[in-house]
Amino acid sequence: MAITRADAEALDEADPLAWMRARFTPGPPGLIALDGNSLGRPPVSVAARLAALAHDWSQRRIDAWDDWMQLPSSVGDLLASEFLGARPGEVVVCDSTSVNLYKVGAAALDAGDAGRNVVVTDDDNFPSDRYVLAGLAASRGGSVRYVTTDPVEGVDPERVASALQPDVGLLSLSHVAYRSGALADMTAINEIARRADVPMVWDLSHSAGAVRVDLEGTGSDLAVGCTYKYLCGGPGAPAFLYVRASRQAAMCQPIWGWFSQRDQFAMGPEYDPVDDIGRFTTGTPPVLGLVCVEEGVRLLASAGIGALRSKGMALGVLAVDLADEWLAPLGFRLASPRRATRRGNHVALAHPDAENLCRRAAAEGVAGDFRGPDRLRLGLAPATISFVEVWDALDRLRAVSASPSS
Amino acid sequence: MAITRADAEALDEADPLAWMRARFTPGPPGLIALDGNSLGRPPVSVAARLAALAHDWSQRRIDAWDDWMQLPSSVGDLLASEFLGARPGEVVVCDSTSVNLYKVGAAALDAGDAGRNVVVTDDDNFPSDRYVLAGLAASRGGSVRYVTTDPVEGVDPERVASALQPDVGLLSLSHVAYRSGALADMTAINEIARRADVPMVWDLSHSAGAVRVDLEGTGSDLAVGCTYKYLCGGPGAPAFLYVRASRQAAMCQPIWGWFSQRDQFAMGPEYDPVDDIGRFTTGTPPVLGLVCVEEGVRLLASAGIGALRSKGMALGVLAVDLADEWLAPLGFRLASPRRATRRGNHVALAHPDAENLCRRAAAEGVAGDFRGPDRLRLGLAPATISFVEVWDALDRLRAVSASPSS
Repeated sequence: MAITRADAEALDEADPLAWMRARFTPGPPGLIALDGNSLGRPPVSVAARLAALAHDWSQRRIDAWDDWMQLPSSVGDLLASEFLGARPGEVVVCDSTSVNLYKVGAAALDAGDAGRNVVVTDDDNFPSDRYVLAGLAASRGGSVRYVTTDPVEGVDPERVASALQPDVGLLSLSHVAYRSGALADMTAINEIARRADVPMVWDLSHSAGAVRVDLEGTGSDLAVGCTYKYLCGGPGAPAFLYVRASRQAAMCQPIWGWFSQRDQFAMGPEYDPVDDIGRFTTGTPPVLGLVCVEEGVRLLASAGIGALRSKGMALGVLAVDLADEWLAPLGFRLASPRRATRRGNHVALAHPDAENLCRRAAAEGVAGDFRGPDRLRLGLAPATISFVEVWDALDRLRAVSASPSS
Repeated sequence: MAITRADAEALDEADPLAWMRARFTPGPPGLIALDGNSLGRPPVSVAARLAALAHDWSQRRIDAWDDWMQLPSSVGDLLASEFLGARPGEVVVCDSTSVNLYKVGAAALDAGDAGRNVVVTDDDNFPSDRYVLAGLAASRGGSVRYVTTDPVEGVDPERVASALQPDVGLLSLSHVAYRSGALADMTAINEIARRADVPMVWDLSHSAGAVRVDLEGTGSDLAVGCTYKYLCGGPGAPAFLYVRASRQAAMCQPIWGWFSQRDQFAMGPEYDPVDDIGRFTTGTPPVLGLVCVEEGVRLLASAGIGALRSKGMALGVLAVDLADEWLAPLGFRLASPRRATRRGNHVALAHPDAENLCRRAAAEGVAGDFRGPDRLRLGLAPATISFVEVWDALDRLRAVSASPSS
């Protein structure tokens, strides 16, 4: 049975998150932006927050550091409680995701046996993660072992278990796959890692603010992630890292910057890191980025991950249903798990001509991400996307795909 | 002969950089801010630039990355030509100073003999540098060897030469000492390092935008530095790093993030870094910080380092003359080199009660930095400080110091 535009309108009328759209700065008129997991939209409040920051910079000056110094941990705590299922003091916002993965991964490797220098990840993991992990392994005389992953269904825990031989010193995977959106089973994989005595770092870049993450409940010890996707922290916003409280004091990250130092402004002769999550920070915090992250996280937290995830799943179901009905006959194939509970908040469609179709869809006002070799990725950010937009986007994609390429 | 306030007024009237003050957002009325080498003042243009950034974020969205991607190298090139004496393609703006020191230092160590795992620095170097260098040495089974430094006159090249034994794999020093302001002799020390076949990383945090730096002419191969001091890039602004062109392809930094990858968006299976300065970058660039750095660097570049340095030296001469006349009888001792050509743009005064006097001076509208154990540091940012402000600041310091502590 055809899903009509009126059906989508009805879903929007019943949407408990409809109020959120007005809290974000509108994009270009007519554009349906399904690329929000590349760059989330700016909260309206960002403008005032940046003006306040500029005021503090000129008027309160270095005294404002009394507040700015707290941002990595205060924004981290907000993220922890609302989106990560972690406790206060377990998350900080700092550096980039790649630098954080390096720091946490190196700390985990250094805490283990030097002979265990193989790092395991999956062959469909995000490129920067794969490269950083390869660098960590190479610097210890080891190498990366790739778990072969189904490019649609994601990581199979059994294959991970097979890869965790005694030479493995670190495992790292993404919770939500950046192409397919497949959700990894955190509890199962953490248990496998624990049995093999291998530290596990989760990348939550496509999870945070999109799907429910329960770091404590799933038995996760280490994680990193990005804030400029669903969390709407702005271009190049600082990333986060998580280390379970009980693991912090025994781990030491390799970049011994002064922000991790006990009694920092004593400027003492020897490096003596604090015992808490602060020991995973390094240099002066990027204040401009941090205040924007705080605006994004606060706004999304005011909706709650429960409502965000529910709507995200509903948007995904609508997109998949319409793709089945309209796009499958035109050569598209669903390249995400079919079950909504197995997906994050994006849907991938495979088509041999995906790159060209992505470009043509953009010309028709539908912005998605092309991800090679043949994927069109539709990011369905629940805070900013309506059901009618999904309907219209799929409708335009159908029109573009049905008409000959110019 | 007493220097009168009228003398200072005359210097301001003749100041070729007087126009610059109006290009920065005014601070609190009546405050004389001599702590600008902790945090430079915001250019007026920052407000409009941040508004433009917010507009791009909402309207141009991910298409704006076409421009944002260029910022690390375009701002780096501007810094290189105007302030660092380096060539295009030798400087990038990214990460924090500590992370950059780690990356460049690790790359230099890794390019050398693994047995040379001692890192040399001086015992008065900036704490974060000392800690990062200690971490680099420790991770390679080595240690740090500290050159004993005169806390006023700075690093003696002969002592550096003595420290460069065959076990040394890396040398790193600050060009301008963060406490005394003493200038290190870059040419002499580079030559010593070259003779010992030891790579040398300069920290230019207190130099960039303050004193003339000629990386090429002094034979420097590697450098890092901060942009939130004299360059006015804003709180926690991203830092820079320099690698001489001829050294780039042979060095590989340890954090293999995707922004250093050749054909980045092909997202290929193996890490294959670009051959140029981009191989020293890691994660997604911090765009908000970068655009503010660009505003600061552009504004200072419009004055030129020649004029900035001339005025900075003149401000220092005035401060030292007044300190000799007014403060020496009150127990202050100059803790910077007496010759202006041997100092950066800050002057340190030692006093047994410096911490308390620093606090009391602040209450009288003179903001300096206390630096332990007994130093009052006066940052004389030539773009924003007037001669009358220096006169008034020393006058107030005299009054505070002459009156009993409450």
